Amino acid sequence: MAKEKKLVESITSMEEDFAQWYTDVVKKAELIDYTSVKGCMVIKPAGYALWENIQHELDKRFKETGVENVYLPLFIPESLLQKEKDHVEGFAPEVAWVTHGGLEPLQERLCVRPTSETLFCDFYANDIHSYRDLPKVYNQWCSVVRWEKTTRPFLRSREFLWQEGHTAHATAQEAEERTIQMLNLYADFCEEVLAIPVIRGKKTDKEKFAGAEATYTIEALMHDGKALQSGTSHNFGDGFAKAFEIQYADKDNTLKYVHQTSWGMSTRIIGGLIMVHGDDSGLVLPPRIAPVQAVVIPVRQKAEGVMEKAQEIRSALIQAGIRAKLDDTDKSPGWKFSEQEMRGIPVRIEMGPKDLEAGQAVVVRRDNREKTVVQIQEIAGKVQEILDTMQKDMLERARAHRDSHTYTAVTKEEFKKTADEKPGFIKAMWCGCRECEEAVKEEIGVTTRCMPFNQEKLSDTCVFCGKPAKTLVYWGKAY
Amino acid sequence: MAKEKKLVESITSMEEDFAQWYTDVVKKAELIDYTSVKGCMVIKPAGYALWENIQHELDKRFKETGVENVYLPLFIPESLLQKEKDHVEGFAPEVAWVTHGGLEPLQERLCVRPTSETLFCDFYANDIHSYRDLPKVYNQWCSVVRWEKTTRPFLRSREFLWQEGHTAHATAQEAEERTIQMLNLYADFCEEVLAIPVIRGKKTDKEKFAGAEATYTIEALMHDGKALQSGTSHNFGDGFAKAFEIQYADKDNTLKYVHQTSWGMSTRIIGGLIMVHGDDSGLVLPPRIAPVQAVVIPVRQKAEGVMEKAQEIRSALIQAGIRAKLDDTDKSPGWKFSEQEMRGIPVRIEMGPKDLEAGQAVVVRRDNREKTVVQIQEIAGKVQEILDTMQKDMLERARAHRDSHTYTAVTKEEFKKTADEKPGFIKAMWCGCRECEEAVKEEIGVTTRCMPFNQEKLSDTCVFCGKPAKTLVYWGKAY
Repeated sequence: MAKEKKLVESITSMEEDFAQWYTDVVKKAELIDYTSVKGCMVIKPAGYALWENIQHELDKRFKETGVENVYLPLFIPESLLQKEKDHVEGFAPEVAWVTHGGLEPLQERLCVRPTSETLFCDFYANDIHSYRDLPKVYNQWCSVVRWEKTTRPFLRSREFLWQEGHTAHATAQEAEERTIQMLNLYADFCEEVLAIPVIRGKKTDKEKFAGAEATYTIEALMHDGKALQSGTSHNFGDGFAKAFEIQYADKDNTLKYVHQTSWGMSTRIIGGLIMVHGDDSGLVLPPRIAPVQAVVIPVRQKAEGVMEKAQEIRSALIQAGIRAKLDDTDKSPGWKFSEQEMRGIPVRIEMGPKDLEAGQAVVVRRDNREKTVVQIQEIAGKVQEILDTMQKDMLERARAHRDSHTYTAVTKEEFKKTADEKPGFIKAMWCGCRECEEAVKEEIGVTTRCMPFNQEKLSDTCVFCGKPAKTLVYWGKAY
Repeated sequence: MAKEKKLVESITSMEEDFAQWYTDVVKKAELIDYTSVKGCMVIKPAGYALWENIQHELDKRFKETGVENVYLPLFIPESLLQKEKDHVEGFAPEVAWVTHGGLEPLQERLCVRPTSETLFCDFYANDIHSYRDLPKVYNQWCSVVRWEKTTRPFLRSREFLWQEGHTAHATAQEAEERTIQMLNLYADFCEEVLAIPVIRGKKTDKEKFAGAEATYTIEALMHDGKALQSGTSHNFGDGFAKAFEIQYADKDNTLKYVHQTSWGMSTRIIGGLIMVHGDDSGLVLPPRIAPVQAVVIPVRQKAEGVMEKAQEIRSALIQAGIRAKLDDTDKSPGWKFSEQEMRGIPVRIEMGPKDLEAGQAVVVRRDNREKTVVQIQEIAGKVQEILDTMQKDMLERARAHRDSHTYTAVTKEEFKKTADEKPGFIKAMWCGCRECEEAVKEEIGVTTRCMPFNQEKLSDTCVFCGKPAKTLVYWGKAY
């Protein structure tokens, strides 16, 4: 057992140092590697396969709502970026600038897109003429660049992969409906596929996207009690339309400005997946997103019939639509078990000569190590059942963890004490004023995560300043 | 009929001006739009859907050969780009340079990847230690940037989408086998899916990729007799491995250099698709790659029962796995026919009150306008048959066109005359010397497209210089 001990011991325990645990898991589960390009990462096959599954699921859900995919340029001319005042202020400090093409300096420098609102607006201004051209519900899958000072794998890097949807509508109401629709799509995806429960809500004015009228967000709680903004959906009203002159001739023959939205989810969510479900043995992947859902690990694989039966099992699983592999390398079974755990493969199927004799195999769940002895002839159905149960259990466990780390505070003292002592969400009332929000950050050390759609009234006054309360807020420390 | 005439008349005829015809089709079929970013395009939904289908098919074929997808950074530090001498010479003149991150100048400038050999080498140098780590068969889907002076939609733009595979192998033989395997994969994909016949062969030393030992290519002939390099596969030998110190400990415990390959196909192939199959009414898409394969167009759609039956037909087609749409807009049927033709939708299904009465519909092929009267109750099966036949016919027609525009030349006079008068491929013997190749370009106006795998011996001497011939070459004018 020396070897498998070594593999597990190679990661720091979560309790000891959560940040180091995270970095260790990302590296040992072979999701990511560092590169010679400061702040940029290599996404390795195991990490990229997760992103492919996320893309596949999201893209399917997008298209069911009428989204069409397009591709716009990587570069934004400086003059275009500057057209919307709030937007440029928000992004200009963190963009990368191209100043030379080939051997010659450019006449106008280009930034590498940090997000593509300005490009979509420029495109829509040419492409939209009449009410018949609306709505436009476009999306692109691409990478974007933001020149961050400190970076962490998946969570914050100078380049990351994402999708960005950009829509244009005839009315304000339609734009608002699309904004909420996409937020709910993200939330359902997180809960149903990633087993990550989220709080749906609205960002405060201070926290909203540069140039947006309203930003909606889904917020997830990580194992260490910190929050992760996991997807956002913005309603721009007609602000960008006015800056970029995007008008359409309505049925009544008058020119009107369009109303726009944008919404995005990125590889950041993989960081969330790791920090919500992982444990001290490594990654734990919900079955619905796992690139490999089951690995068959023969024990005493050279014994007569073992390997043949293991192959049969793998085939039966694949036949039933389960993403299954067989580990037939010459490593020890214990080492293979450790690897399966490190990589977060949802179940392993152990089978040796004795099992073979009894016509059975042992299915071991990654999340709780529960073992089930299963008759080989009914293995595919049983494994599918176990995967389904595991998927549900993981969501429930994450929800229970989130709920047991969600606190309420009515007084400033409670607020301070909870923030200091109990990592998690704090629900508390807020007066709605920006100065108060900033003072909370300064004094209490937490920020507004969102004003949840599900409002409650905990008290009549702001938890911090005592003025009349306007809204319930989820506060927390965030990644 | 005034309107549909207008739509067709809005494109220039091929005979009159092929280049203008191409630009018109790209624009009117709504594949692409120009942008404020010079030399960069917007790929619109109809264009991007083609790329998605290409990606889907290629990715599936890649994975069947063991390819794993990854993602490497967008940026390459200048020092990294310079590590392989030939490579930097080939690419440095046409890269875009990032010199500032946020508000500060960078210590070392970064180029936006024109291709990622250097990044993969840097990654492999860290990731490969032992023979157990080999082979690495990685691929990425991304965009790349080359600062072209003159650009054309799909064919040559400053940014384009592609996939780039990068592999590392223990032996030279394995690398060569992978190089050829991927070239054949591209060729099969072009012929089976895009209905584009290709010549498989090797590039001359002059035309090979910067840093490669050998470059293999597939060359297709466009409708106007010009050639399009449609996919390439490179064998690097151990040249990059030596420049980047990529070594592995072999079974015999000695350190050895890996052998590498790379291979790519890009959105350029969509340009090929247009120029091989298109006609004076617009795009013609082979059924296997068409985002919409069949469009149902009701005639007198307000007549009783017509729209209901049209919906039924659409459902039956979708049920059978055919990508079908119903055009139920209030445009005239003639206008809808023109649109279907412009967009290259493989078949349209016309159905009016009289057809309804007779329980039939008319299926019209896009490529040859052939009409088939089909019983509605067996429509899905019949449409599938027609699509299958059309796919085969399109490949055969393209092959016949290619063959009838492939000429041979034995003497310099023949060579010159053919090049001047007959657009197409010219097969002719070559001495293998670079000076001769350059003189042919200068004097005859054609370049070497490839030395085909299927060699023939047309004569003993070089068509140009009369020295002993080494190889048969396909010559042509290229995009």
